[in-house]
Amino acid sequence: MEMKVFLWSLAAVLTLSSAVSSPVETPRERHIIHPLRQLSGSGGSPPSGVTCASWRFGVETNSVRGWTTVPRRCERYVGHYMLGDRYRQDSAAVTAEAAAYAEGLRLNGNGKDVWIFDIDETSLSNLPYYAHHGFGAEEYNSTTFNEWVNTGKAPALPESLKLYKKVLSLGVKVVFLTGRGEESREITSANLRRAGFEQWEKLLLRGEGDKRTALAYKSSERKKLRREGYRIVGNIGDQWSDILGKAQGGRTFKLPDPMYYLN
Amino acid sequence: MEMKVFLWSLAAVLTLSSAVSSPVETPRERHIIHPLRQLSGSGGSPPSGVTCASWRFGVETNSVRGWTTVPRRCERYVGHYMLGDRYRQDSAAVTAEAAAYAEGLRLNGNGKDVWIFDIDETSLSNLPYYAHHGFGAEEYNSTTFNEWVNTGKAPALPESLKLYKKVLSLGVKVVFLTGRGEESREITSANLRRAGFEQWEKLLLRGEGDKRTALAYKSSERKKLRREGYRIVGNIGDQWSDILGKAQGGRTFKLPDPMYYLN
Repeated sequence: MEMKVFLWSLAAVLTLSSAVSSPVETPRERHIIHPLRQLSGSGGSPPSGVTCASWRFGVETNSVRGWTTVPRRCERYVGHYMLGDRYRQDSAAVTAEAAAYAEGLRLNGNGKDVWIFDIDETSLSNLPYYAHHGFGAEEYNSTTFNEWVNTGKAPALPESLKLYKKVLSLGVKVVFLTGRGEESREITSANLRRAGFEQWEKLLLRGEGDKRTALAYKSSERKKLRREGYRIVGNIGDQWSDILGKAQGGRTFKLPDPMYYLN
Repeated sequence: MEMKVFLWSLAAVLTLSSAVSSPVETPRERHIIHPLRQLSGSGGSPPSGVTCASWRFGVETNSVRGWTTVPRRCERYVGHYMLGDRYRQDSAAVTAEAAAYAEGLRLNGNGKDVWIFDIDETSLSNLPYYAHHGFGAEEYNSTTFNEWVNTGKAPALPESLKLYKKVLSLGVKVVFLTGRGEESREITSANLRRAGFEQWEKLLLRGEGDKRTALAYKSSERKKLRREGYRIVGNIGDQWSDILGKAQGGRTFKLPDPMYYLN
């Protein structure tokens, strides 16, 4: 079992390393990264009759909520999903639809049309980390996760990077809106650039001590953008809390993520 | 190919007939059924690189919208999904979560706690019809669909029937909220009873000439319920337009439906 997990981890790193655009660098100075807000409820234990594939259906359709870890019996399933073709294909189905929608937009052309990208599991992939931590079946550990974030080596999700380039080419500006905290602005900017996301209109991070849910925080930031005269034409994320709430934007796009849940 | 479709159809009828609680009756007098509102846009044609499984992911996560028919190349895939175990398992994952949530509710106990059930592909299954019509790959035909509805023989979705019984047993009342029109009230009531849904607080159907989207119509009906003093504790449907919008309820649950899209 441990051997298998190791092989997966290795496969993850090998698979993803090709997506990292710059060579390995020495780790930057440590920053304290605002932990991703995961729920502290129970959850993660679907009734025994529910298959892992159907548990994932429930998760991805926002029916199964508030879980803290992938059910232990689904670790293998989620690992195979994430490292196999399916995760990439599901991502591609979503971003292809997003690109087609973007192409059909009538833009204001005043430089105020924006597309919102979430960061973790949307623009940048933490799969190299999660491959070493049970694909979400292990309890969230902010220390090791922050260590990973601070390496600044998260690769791009290739499908999202393609969409990013597409919307920029159409004259839409990009706003990154993330649950990461202000203290990680520098490493996050560096990681984004390194992964191929070279420009943005805004990089919005959570303020210190902000205890709101992701849904409330992101809704509030989007409303602020609107007040500043921006028109949110599209919005893409891997969590429902990225795309539900207020000022969602002209269309929302939900990327796959069966590894964790944020509300 | 036609033989295969026939076998599917047969399998569908055989599989589902066990869920029909009463014996076959002679068709009732014809009523004009308000057609389900399907979009008239193009859609239904994912980029060639997108697999049918990933197209379904996009559909079920509300990323792929506005399609009128299942892509022709996905007819077989959707047929297998609907008639195989997966559709039932995905439904069970959602209703098991809904039942667990319902059990944890603190009810007002004043008879005003309600759970909203959509009808088509939520409470009643039109799979015996769609098995004969390409599982959504054929263009929607209101004439033949209404003929099917008018037989009043749609079976229950077994998982939803179980949830229905569960919420009733907890003291929650059931409101059916459907895009079907008032003119089909009689046949719909008869079909619901026949399929095992024997009581309800309200059966809300669309008024004559109501041209609103399902999202607008259903939001408006839910707001009306709230004004009448009801508390919507749960809401289940197969379309995103059943569960997004205003007064969604305490939790929403999305059942699978890769056969059609309603906005």
